[in-house]
Amino acid sequence: MTEQQLVERIRRYLPVHGRGVVLSIGDDCAIFRPQGSREDLLFTSDQSIQDVHFRAGTSARRIGARAIARALSDIAAMGGDPRFCLISVSMPARFDLISFYRGVRSVADRYRLTVAGGDLARTKRVACDVVVCGSVSRGAALRRDRARPGNVVYVSGPLGANAASGYKLQPEPRIALGRRLLGRATGCMDISDGLVIDLARLCQASGVGAELAGVPVADGATLDQATNGGEDYELLYTGPPNLPGIPIGFISESPHGIVTFPNSELTRGGWDHFANES
Amino acid sequence: MTEQQLVERIRRYLPVHGRGVVLSIGDDCAIFRPQGSREDLLFTSDQSIQDVHFRAGTSARRIGARAIARALSDIAAMGGDPRFCLISVSMPARFDLISFYRGVRSVADRYRLTVAGGDLARTKRVACDVVVCGSVSRGAALRRDRARPGNVVYVSGPLGANAASGYKLQPEPRIALGRRLLGRATGCMDISDGLVIDLARLCQASGVGAELAGVPVADGATLDQATNGGEDYELLYTGPPNLPGIPIGFISESPHGIVTFPNSELTRGGWDHFANES
Repeated sequence: MTEQQLVERIRRYLPVHGRGVVLSIGDDCAIFRPQGSREDLLFTSDQSIQDVHFRAGTSARRIGARAIARALSDIAAMGGDPRFCLISVSMPARFDLISFYRGVRSVADRYRLTVAGGDLARTKRVACDVVVCGSVSRGAALRRDRARPGNVVYVSGPLGANAASGYKLQPEPRIALGRRLLGRATGCMDISDGLVIDLARLCQASGVGAELAGVPVADGATLDQATNGGEDYELLYTGPPNLPGIPIGFISESPHGIVTFPNSELTRGGWDHFANES
Repeated sequence: MTEQQLVERIRRYLPVHGRGVVLSIGDDCAIFRPQGSREDLLFTSDQSIQDVHFRAGTSARRIGARAIARALSDIAAMGGDPRFCLISVSMPARFDLISFYRGVRSVADRYRLTVAGGDLARTKRVACDVVVCGSVSRGAALRRDRARPGNVVYVSGPLGANAASGYKLQPEPRIALGRRLLGRATGCMDISDGLVIDLARLCQASGVGAELAGVPVADGATLDQATNGGEDYELLYTGPPNLPGIPIGFISESPHGIVTFPNSELTRGGWDHFANES
């Protein structure tokens, strides 16, 4: 079962009781609409776990900075303005929690993102879970289910640099670009697991296909790293031909989720924690 | 360093950038005020980790139910109406995730609480982090820093039953009571770590003291379990003499945080994950 299949199974099992929840599981963020407010609130959760998302020995500061940047990339993908976050941390007694929060602040302060709460626990390995809340004008959030046939497909920058570095880079979340795309892009998401797998997700959510004309490869990266490497945190979005960014193809009416690239169907790549299980 | 001292150090380190955050780290929930809304939103994070909060072999259903109940108790403590939650889970491949969500629903559905998102990862041990959002009328949230000298101190029920059971009970969060206390109680929190330690926290937050006249002991529990046992998830609150609940003493002007009990200062008990470290 892939992660997406597992998430889809959970999504079908869990009822949406409404009461302000406009969009639930399945996009980069959930959307909540407070009563009488002019703004919708976006919420995303991202875990960063030792031996899964980072190696033992990674500095506490780096763990904190990277955890916040990953979650902010989901807010960027929906055009959000970062507002506050909650951070739960479990760690051994020797873990330097203040350095961790120094890393958090190195990213959060740039966006005036307040750490409003969290939870602490003692464990042998380090893990954290970051929930970020961002805001957009009511009804304006960018979503991955709004790509339409004929739209141009864009990425916000060359891809594969983080894969080429051995995932040592700390990409900046594309908050400013996400906000510039509000009211202009149709579909949007961030590339976290790799261009091809993420474009297929966007197409499936929108019930469309895509034809890729080319892929912008970052300096020092291979074509495979650009198409299947993850964690560049560039935005992937669709819309009319005059949007900022790098056009890489267009949205088609072909069967949903099918991404073609130089006229042959690519095998799915990218990073999926669950894909290699039975 | 106790958990409270650690949290206080982190709180002082982290700036509050405003932008809707009315109350940050230090109470049961953070408070966020959406632009132009009639409601304030409450947010709490609670981790549930194997070998820390539950034993290996605990059923997935029970882990899910308990994780949601713990977080909802924080919402109850501030008078909140549960709205939605985000659940991050890390677990081995054999973990029965659907049973886990069955446990989540056994509690969440009673409050029409939508699971709006989360994150999944593969790890050797089971851990989850639950963030619950609740709502209250603007400015109405119950807080632990509002107890005043002369107030009566109440608990919502007899204490110690969960400690006496070896922490096998699944207490119900006191959501309905919390909502009945809105506009009536002054200070309020839930008893998660033990009556004495939590009352001391409420007193410290409010800059007052308390004199305990007695402690209601649950059937089968000892006085020590009632005063120092945790996880009963009863509410502890202060206010005028006509509130629902069991009066157990009163708030004094004595030096802040000092709780006296039959005229002698109790040693602090309760559960603190960090208290026994250097």
